Amino acid sequence: MRYGIVLRILGHLLIFLSFAMATSLPWSFYYGEDDWQYILLSSLISLAFGALSLIKPKQQEDLRPKEGFAIVAFAWIVYAMFGALPFYLSGYIPSYTDAFFETMSGFTTTGATILTDIEKLPYGLLFWRSLTHWLGGMGIIVLTLAILPFLGVGGMQLFKAESPGPVVDKLSPRITETAKILWLVYVLISAIEVVLLLLGGMNLFDSLCHTFGTMATGGFSTKNASIGFYNSRYFDYVITIFMIVAGANFSLHYRLLKGNFRDVFKSEEFKFYLGIILASTLVIGYQNYVLVYYDFTETFRYTVFQVSSIMTTTGFVTADYEQWTSNSQLILLLLMFIGGCAGSTGGGIKVIRIYILYKFLRTEIVKLVHPQAIVHVKIGETVVDRKILLNVAGFFVLFMFLIGIGILLMSFIGLDIETAIGSVAATINNVGPGIGGVGPTDNYAFIPQIGKWILSFLMLIGRLELFTVIILLAPSFWRK
Amino acid sequence: MRYGIVLRILGHLLIFLSFAMATSLPWSFYYGEDDWQYILLSSLISLAFGALSLIKPKQQEDLRPKEGFAIVAFAWIVYAMFGALPFYLSGYIPSYTDAFFETMSGFTTTGATILTDIEKLPYGLLFWRSLTHWLGGMGIIVLTLAILPFLGVGGMQLFKAESPGPVVDKLSPRITETAKILWLVYVLISAIEVVLLLLGGMNLFDSLCHTFGTMATGGFSTKNASIGFYNSRYFDYVITIFMIVAGANFSLHYRLLKGNFRDVFKSEEFKFYLGIILASTLVIGYQNYVLVYYDFTETFRYTVFQVSSIMTTTGFVTADYEQWTSNSQLILLLLMFIGGCAGSTGGGIKVIRIYILYKFLRTEIVKLVHPQAIVHVKIGETVVDRKILLNVAGFFVLFMFLIGIGILLMSFIGLDIETAIGSVAATINNVGPGIGGVGPTDNYAFIPQIGKWILSFLMLIGRLELFTVIILLAPSFWRK
Repeated sequence: MRYGIVLRILGHLLIFLSFAMATSLPWSFYYGEDDWQYILLSSLISLAFGALSLIKPKQQEDLRPKEGFAIVAFAWIVYAMFGALPFYLSGYIPSYTDAFFETMSGFTTTGATILTDIEKLPYGLLFWRSLTHWLGGMGIIVLTLAILPFLGVGGMQLFKAESPGPVVDKLSPRITETAKILWLVYVLISAIEVVLLLLGGMNLFDSLCHTFGTMATGGFSTKNASIGFYNSRYFDYVITIFMIVAGANFSLHYRLLKGNFRDVFKSEEFKFYLGIILASTLVIGYQNYVLVYYDFTETFRYTVFQVSSIMTTTGFVTADYEQWTSNSQLILLLLMFIGGCAGSTGGGIKVIRIYILYKFLRTEIVKLVHPQAIVHVKIGETVVDRKILLNVAGFFVLFMFLIGIGILLMSFIGLDIETAIGSVAATINNVGPGIGGVGPTDNYAFIPQIGKWILSFLMLIGRLELFTVIILLAPSFWRK
Repeated sequence: MRYGIVLRILGHLLIFLSFAMATSLPWSFYYGEDDWQYILLSSLISLAFGALSLIKPKQQEDLRPKEGFAIVAFAWIVYAMFGALPFYLSGYIPSYTDAFFETMSGFTTTGATILTDIEKLPYGLLFWRSLTHWLGGMGIIVLTLAILPFLGVGGMQLFKAESPGPVVDKLSPRITETAKILWLVYVLISAIEVVLLLLGGMNLFDSLCHTFGTMATGGFSTKNASIGFYNSRYFDYVITIFMIVAGANFSLHYRLLKGNFRDVFKSEEFKFYLGIILASTLVIGYQNYVLVYYDFTETFRYTVFQVSSIMTTTGFVTADYEQWTSNSQLILLLLMFIGGCAGSTGGGIKVIRIYILYKFLRTEIVKLVHPQAIVHVKIGETVVDRKILLNVAGFFVLFMFLIGIGILLMSFIGLDIETAIGSVAATINNVGPGIGGVGPTDNYAFIPQIGKWILSFLMLIGRLELFTVIILLAPSFWRK
């Protein structure tokens, strides 16, 4: 591990953060609020620390895998640490633990909040809060489509194989190129959503913030009642569609934008993803129609929104789904674990992994019936080899183990069973609202300090595909 | 699939069931109750159906894997179907669904009951109820140590490798021999427990029934308050020890009886198993001492009993653990999933699988840190190859998928979230009492009919290592 290289890159990222933070300033000035001083101060502090870590001279050398892992994990940690400053210094979030939780929730595109009254925040801070989502989403797309496949995390090599679009084989030179293309797609789709929201009559500020929340599958809103605030069929459907888009693989969108429609409908992951959303909407919708809304259009509107929001791990809310049946709530809970597609901004285990595991189980059964048969797991035309199957299965097992440990820890500090399960599911899957005490109408304010640190860690670990963070805990990682 | 052979073997098993049922008759006569007529009638019906399926002439041929699977799964189903007759015909359990549930719960060594007043049952029926446990346990030991390794289910080949005691390589001739040795061990340990209970002042009837419940890790008691009825430190500790024995690999006991003490303490699974029981007792005990019992000896007594009872998936109760902290309840819930050792009568995922998966995750992390390194998963001196790792991971994934589906189904028919989770965990892991509406002081009487069939199926599927039952649902299994 060459700490100098790691530090330099983190420094560059911190300088970028400083400029990103400064883009919130115009909103403070425009609305004439005094939060600009704290945003500026935080931006300057970030700049100073960033510049400080560039003191060492530049070395022209490719990154090693270990250094790649360290940079990725620490990038998110450093961003949450410095990104929390505007909230903390301005006093709007008086506890640094809370400010860190909120910012980690932002950059990990989770959307879990400790704020009891969101609308009390000045515009500059609200903008920064939503912007952390959008930046986090940018980071994640590049991470999962360009960096992790190279590092071989949790079967990510496969996503490389499945998406012969803009992906890289080597870590260093082509990352920049890939990143540029993907970000262009990300910016373009975001722009379309902003325009559509503006056309519906949402003001520019809220259109931007809600687009940040949608495209990153984050879920921070500028309103206490989330999207429910607008009570508008138009906004509900626009956001539903863009959540579904954000939860799909961005290399598909790239190909779609290039006019390659056939690939999109050939993607087994994409079809499986839409299938799950449709099936869940039908099953929950049936129960909602009979027991909650009694009206077809209202039922469909609220159900498809909430299903898409939870499945893509966005976490926007238009209905208090804790008033729905236990079965509906449990379906939503399971959807959290499935999550978005690979190479999307969505969290969770990812649709492709669930799909591969499902196909794998089928081959296991065929092998038991015909012990002599040679059967392969295939995705499209690609045979998934044993090594990748083991990676994917290992990811799933680690996910379950971490959830078990997380639930035990959260209950140990005093949470009831349902809230312990709900809070862990909502953070490790980067959803935001969960069930129990952290349901759609609740927030995370009441969680004890230590619990907020545990949940922050779960957000990080879930967002970075587990292994990226877990290997930093292995002593062998730090040994020479 | 040669149905004739399958039918013949099921016929033999049914005749055996008929005789086993008849051993309950002396208790009816001794206590002068009239349930003997229904037991006798049921026994004769079983005999008749058994004899009927022997009409086809005998063929001298080894079984094929497919036939092996069919026999195993149908053996348990047929046993539950006919074993339920005494309860149903006598009218003590007026619904056949309930009687089937109770009997499936017996033969799968689960111990979940639909009886609201156990003590109302006559002695003959009570004896038969407990005997189903003991017979089920016998079946399981032979199944997991002699039959499944040959069929290659869920990494069971490994248990063969790990226990070079009385295990077989070929399906047909040596099974009988292996079975005899293992049953001898089972009978011998059971006899010791009966004697110890008698010495403590329990009467012969209850000593036998509770021994059946212990050795099979079943959990049916003759008392409504389970073992708590006796409120005796002596019985608590005797049963705690024998539950732990029953949850350990029986091929270890065989070697122990032959004087080979070293092997027992060389078994990594056994050490891991004891370690989990100890650690859980400490963590739960600490909370119980501070918040519930305030007394060291009482705390230890109740905690170690309940931890052992749940971890081994027995399900005997001496304390209402729903009065313990959420954290304690969640630890118990996780212990249900770990379950007993391979080759024991315990249910759950099994300690060895969890241990292998844990070691596997460690090697995955090492491989990420050192991509060029060649690392193997080792249990003792044995290298676990990729095929077996995939089998074990596949088992884990299927288990989780089935739990998810089970919980959704149970909530769909109206159970609340906690009861849906509790009832599925308690049945697929063959524990008995769960959490929520099916906690240690509750029973399964209130579950809707369809729910009882679903839970019966989960008991079967969990008990038979999932794949044995699941492959029967694959269309390719039935194709020529």
